[in-house]
Amino acid sequence: MNVASREIHLAARPVGEPAAEHFRLVTAEVPDLAEGQILVRNTWISVDPYMRGRMNDAPSYIPPFALDAPMEGSAYGEVVASRSGIAVGAHVVHFLGWREYAVVDAATATVVDPSQASPEHWLGALGTTGLTAYAALTEVAPVKEGDVVFISAAAGAVGSVAGQLARKLGAAKVIGSAGGPVKARKVVEDFGFDAAIDYREGDLPGRLAALAPDGIDVYVDHVGGDHLEAAIGALRHGGRIALVGAIAEYNTTEPVPGPGNLFRLVAREASVRGMLVSSYLPLFGEYVGKAAGWLADGSLRTEETVVDGLENAPEAFLGVLRGANTGKMLVRL
Amino acid sequence: MNVASREIHLAARPVGEPAAEHFRLVTAEVPDLAEGQILVRNTWISVDPYMRGRMNDAPSYIPPFALDAPMEGSAYGEVVASRSGIAVGAHVVHFLGWREYAVVDAATATVVDPSQASPEHWLGALGTTGLTAYAALTEVAPVKEGDVVFISAAAGAVGSVAGQLARKLGAAKVIGSAGGPVKARKVVEDFGFDAAIDYREGDLPGRLAALAPDGIDVYVDHVGGDHLEAAIGALRHGGRIALVGAIAEYNTTEPVPGPGNLFRLVAREASVRGMLVSSYLPLFGEYVGKAAGWLADGSLRTEETVVDGLENAPEAFLGVLRGANTGKMLVRL
Repeated sequence: MNVASREIHLAARPVGEPAAEHFRLVTAEVPDLAEGQILVRNTWISVDPYMRGRMNDAPSYIPPFALDAPMEGSAYGEVVASRSGIAVGAHVVHFLGWREYAVVDAATATVVDPSQASPEHWLGALGTTGLTAYAALTEVAPVKEGDVVFISAAAGAVGSVAGQLARKLGAAKVIGSAGGPVKARKVVEDFGFDAAIDYREGDLPGRLAALAPDGIDVYVDHVGGDHLEAAIGALRHGGRIALVGAIAEYNTTEPVPGPGNLFRLVAREASVRGMLVSSYLPLFGEYVGKAAGWLADGSLRTEETVVDGLENAPEAFLGVLRGANTGKMLVRL
Repeated sequence: MNVASREIHLAARPVGEPAAEHFRLVTAEVPDLAEGQILVRNTWISVDPYMRGRMNDAPSYIPPFALDAPMEGSAYGEVVASRSGIAVGAHVVHFLGWREYAVVDAATATVVDPSQASPEHWLGALGTTGLTAYAALTEVAPVKEGDVVFISAAAGAVGSVAGQLARKLGAAKVIGSAGGPVKARKVVEDFGFDAAIDYREGDLPGRLAALAPDGIDVYVDHVGGDHLEAAIGALRHGGRIALVGAIAEYNTTEPVPGPGNLFRLVAREASVRGMLVSSYLPLFGEYVGKAAGWLADGSLRTEETVVDGLENAPEAFLGVLRGANTGKMLVRL
């Protein structure tokens, strides 16, 4: 086909924190399409914390990235050639990101309507990012009318959506935590949380107790570590914790001690439950149906941190792991 | 009324492990009955691990024992005087144990049929002990057909019942852990588990993996600590853990580090949920209806460790905390 595509390969598996040397920019010729495939020119790609796990050669719920092959992840683009029912010119979301051109099995691509929402939204609040927040708060740790809800990484992609969904689901108070005063202010002013904790100021349990003197009912955990322990300490009877991720633990090389207060779950009859968004894909239609309207009427607000150029995708990804983003971190090609 | 009753008072609050000095044997005069009360001559009393928590002066789901007042707990006895609808001569289960005679509000006593089951069963497998096992395996961490189930403290009162109930609920394999070879053998030979681990031999994770090479679906935790961590490590996708207690942590004075592998709950989409039997009392009728039949036909086997004499109740209780019992620990007066 004589199309050259630049792509980011996994060059080496990191131990602990990843760095630039673990990635490699490669130019490759795009193979011909087989029957049932489409060629997509990616215009936006998503970089997400969970990808850190795929850099390890360890069995998990999703296979590791292969060495010396392109990384993968959600991407948005335009169909430029097709041997399938998807027409050239269509816009699609698919899972072969980290490259300029992708040969995609049409069955794994979703055609989206660019007039309904922007690429940023299709990859963010209307994508698995938003669905994660929705599933966490409706299925895994369901919010009930009047609940006090605590959300970590509240300025992040999932957290910023989760706080707003919690309110729509009936929460009486929504508290977020974020790193640094700028993000903490955004959490309240831009994403409509009732209060925010800048966890870098320390004493997370004390700050949480001050903001929720009668405790919390629901916690959405993205970070693990001290956040999880503080949330367990604040749980009310029947409290529910959704474990979505543990950014604080992704780069550790030693096991991190678990929360020392886990036994409190007994007296509080509380629960901690892990989730993978892949189990909630059947909710997508229901969720997008609601969220597209909320985005359109301005009652669901998002923010994106955009980095330009495929060559800067590794740095964007490393930034997500450090919390350099507000909202969804995206790379525009 | 001129009835003298010997009773065990809490003499001092222990820090760490309790000892004889924290209890006092007192002889007191029994007060007159008020309207709606019964006088019960206790013949059996129950000593249970959870009572350790009530010796602390700390807010919890159940008030602490008062200093210089009788301890409390489940008891079985005969009504010897009544100013209520309960007849003299009736047999009752109530919550004012640790004493020879108890003045009980009739509304808090349950009349039982001594021809249907023994006092040991009314305080054990047909009491909150059995209900704990039933609620754990039907409501908190429900057993499904074909599940692999792991139960700690499997020679204990709740654990020995739980293993047998798991099988009745459809488990394909039931594994127990117990301290020492004698108990481990009992777990298999007397209580019908498929396999038992003597955790004193070490390498609990390795032994569990050998017995359940494809992992476990359900775990009933009575001990916390290394057992909980080993169970989380062995969980299959969608696995469920019921937290019933944490004997290993009751006497600690420092926070115990939590399981270092809690984050695995995400990839396994697994859950950990605490429970208090008091929330499941509405299941009592359903459970006793089944369990009385199983006890009668011999398909549910129990064992009791019986200590004679109220004066030996503290030693019996200390024994439960050390694992000196097989099955339910009871004091016969």
